[in-house]
Amino acid sequence: MFRQLMTFEEAKKVVNEQLKLKILGEEEISLLEAYNRVLAEDVVATMDIPPFNRSTVDGYAVKAADTVGAEENQPVQLRICGQVSVGEQPKVMVNPGEAAEIVTGAPIPEGTDAVVMVEDTDSEDHLLRVYRAVTRDENVMKKGADIKKGETVLKAGQVLGASEIGVLAALGYSKAKVFKVPVVAVLSTGAEVTEPGKPLPAGKIYDINAYSISTAILESGGKPLYLGVIPDDKAALQAALKHALSSADMVITSGGVSVGPKDLTPQTVSSLGEPGLLVCGIAVKPGKPTTIALVGEKPVFALPGHPASALLIFHLLVRPVIQRMAGRTALEDKTVKAAASTRMFSAKGRRTFVMVKLKPDALRGFVAVPVETGASGAITTLAKADGFVEIPENQQFIDSGEEVTVTLLKSKLSL
Amino acid sequence: MFRQLMTFEEAKKVVNEQLKLKILGEEEISLLEAYNRVLAEDVVATMDIPPFNRSTVDGYAVKAADTVGAEENQPVQLRICGQVSVGEQPKVMVNPGEAAEIVTGAPIPEGTDAVVMVEDTDSEDHLLRVYRAVTRDENVMKKGADIKKGETVLKAGQVLGASEIGVLAALGYSKAKVFKVPVVAVLSTGAEVTEPGKPLPAGKIYDINAYSISTAILESGGKPLYLGVIPDDKAALQAALKHALSSADMVITSGGVSVGPKDLTPQTVSSLGEPGLLVCGIAVKPGKPTTIALVGEKPVFALPGHPASALLIFHLLVRPVIQRMAGRTALEDKTVKAAASTRMFSAKGRRTFVMVKLKPDALRGFVAVPVETGASGAITTLAKADGFVEIPENQQFIDSGEEVTVTLLKSKLSL
Repeated sequence: MFRQLMTFEEAKKVVNEQLKLKILGEEEISLLEAYNRVLAEDVVATMDIPPFNRSTVDGYAVKAADTVGAEENQPVQLRICGQVSVGEQPKVMVNPGEAAEIVTGAPIPEGTDAVVMVEDTDSEDHLLRVYRAVTRDENVMKKGADIKKGETVLKAGQVLGASEIGVLAALGYSKAKVFKVPVVAVLSTGAEVTEPGKPLPAGKIYDINAYSISTAILESGGKPLYLGVIPDDKAALQAALKHALSSADMVITSGGVSVGPKDLTPQTVSSLGEPGLLVCGIAVKPGKPTTIALVGEKPVFALPGHPASALLIFHLLVRPVIQRMAGRTALEDKTVKAAASTRMFSAKGRRTFVMVKLKPDALRGFVAVPVETGASGAITTLAKADGFVEIPENQQFIDSGEEVTVTLLKSKLSL
Repeated sequence: MFRQLMTFEEAKKVVNEQLKLKILGEEEISLLEAYNRVLAEDVVATMDIPPFNRSTVDGYAVKAADTVGAEENQPVQLRICGQVSVGEQPKVMVNPGEAAEIVTGAPIPEGTDAVVMVEDTDSEDHLLRVYRAVTRDENVMKKGADIKKGETVLKAGQVLGASEIGVLAALGYSKAKVFKVPVVAVLSTGAEVTEPGKPLPAGKIYDINAYSISTAILESGGKPLYLGVIPDDKAALQAALKHALSSADMVITSGGVSVGPKDLTPQTVSSLGEPGLLVCGIAVKPGKPTTIALVGEKPVFALPGHPASALLIFHLLVRPVIQRMAGRTALEDKTVKAAASTRMFSAKGRRTFVMVKLKPDALRGFVAVPVETGASGAITTLAKADGFVEIPENQQFIDSGEEVTVTLLKSKLSL
């Protein structure tokens, strides 16, 4: 079996250049289901918002010029010629010296250009007294003040949140054209792996990876397709991978990629189609056995069986792929500067990622404390860690007290 | 109509103390659907993880004492007495002077306490030469090293992400007991409001709020129930609110709460049941007409019709309520210090929230620039703003250049 280790940078280059990643396609969905989806087209306003000059207060629509000189002790008198309701085309025509009663949100009637607030008036039958002069456009939200017809209000690639969905609704859209969500098949391999919910025979362990990776796929904007634990047998694995490739846009396996005699995944993946295996092992720690292939246009990632290693490699190499297929801008990881709590060693010749917990420190802001790594397969490692410190291939160690950059793993970390 | 304005702090106190908020209840769901849900119970490990001593490498299980003195030029010789496969109870019993072939993940057989890596050995038939001594437990992940039986591994109230779901899977759970998601009915009122997707008659505008608020509910961990635009008529509104109260855990309306003669919402809400109206207007800007009621045990929020005001009040007062009903710890808002780009005025006697955009500034870190507020109903205001600056009731203005605290509105803001 060949096992030529690529450097981490080489593996990243393969992912970026050889996977031929492209956005999957578009679909139209209800605006009520568009939260957190990615807009597939620029949106140009087809109308002005608001579509007409609106009153922003309750009061009287007037010609501003008619109120010149109005003061507390010297009201201007106008004739009330009618009223304008909200939600209706005004039926009244206001002549000089006249005013029309109006409510918040109603269209300004013809012949007027401002609104006097009801608090600044009093009235008797058809006589209105105005105690405060208004200027042109005062208390009026002009047609197009929010959005101008022809303006590009949203761009393809924007993730739809409350404001963006509000903008689409304002323009009258009940649907949005968004990019399709990549479907990612997830399967676990390994003779020792048992599905949760079933009894656990001696010598076996429960499948962690399919569950943690499925969740990480959701967090990355993909849709996991859980295919369960595949028996440790070449024919079964081949059939499962073929099924996965035909049902999903991308496949992730875990387990079965170290150097044991029963590790079938790389051989089986390479038999599925061209171009086949692109990366067979990476000079990183943890995650060395990571295997990456392309079958037709569909990427296949074979991640290590160790849960913490699998999730770390997912974060470093798989998540950006899902995001690009989904049309998302891969968010830059957030980082925090901290002081190393202890000397951290690298694995010789391998890019080393040390999982750390951040502890506030009065003097140095934060201290990065390595999460106990005695148990390299520990699922609890990642639950305890806030992020990781990266040690370059050519560096033997980071010294205690040295400043390190911690890349945060949890998106919602509130420090 | 009574309209006694509470201060913002008084209104917050009413929300915290009089809404009698409690977590809704529990449900059991598939672990594959548990992402971003809130755990309803502490999880105590019912087994050790791993459940047995496992090899972390491929090689030979030995008694460490048998390898003492083994070196590159002076191998120790042992007899290979069998092999241990992954996923099986070891069938072999290893006596002193013997070794058993083993692969990564397989249980350590009886009579051994360490594993020699295959790279440190060679073999011929049943003869094994060991070129490197191992210490007790070397290359062994001990039973319970990841999780100890009886340990509390997860706490009620934790939000389930990839690591937490991995921990549940490790313990064999295919389901999780989580808190129910609060269902929040959303309806819009106002004679001028038309549902998106329908033709827009003259004098009308499209409904923005039901869409932007539904999205904000999702963002807060609730489930929106969209009930559409309710005709501006007391009987229709009463029927719609009754239906909303019977179908949801909480109701949000928007529009119909300013001082216009057709503003029916407060009156109608107060007729629905005890204790009824608790807040009728708040001394804030924007959002003054905000109305809060309790009907039985169900909160009703009547938000202003202006989209930006409605979303701001949602953020300030409604979101924490949804989070508490969902059993979530209300996350502290993130804040950033910035210098005011210009003098910002408050509304007399009202807590004022000025929407601002943050601009990086070489000298001062960030500058907070108010988002143009000419159009107070503008949905684009919030899309353009990064957060808000709060001006206390007793302060007339914030001066240009003064340091301000900007509360960030967008959870995923990457500055």
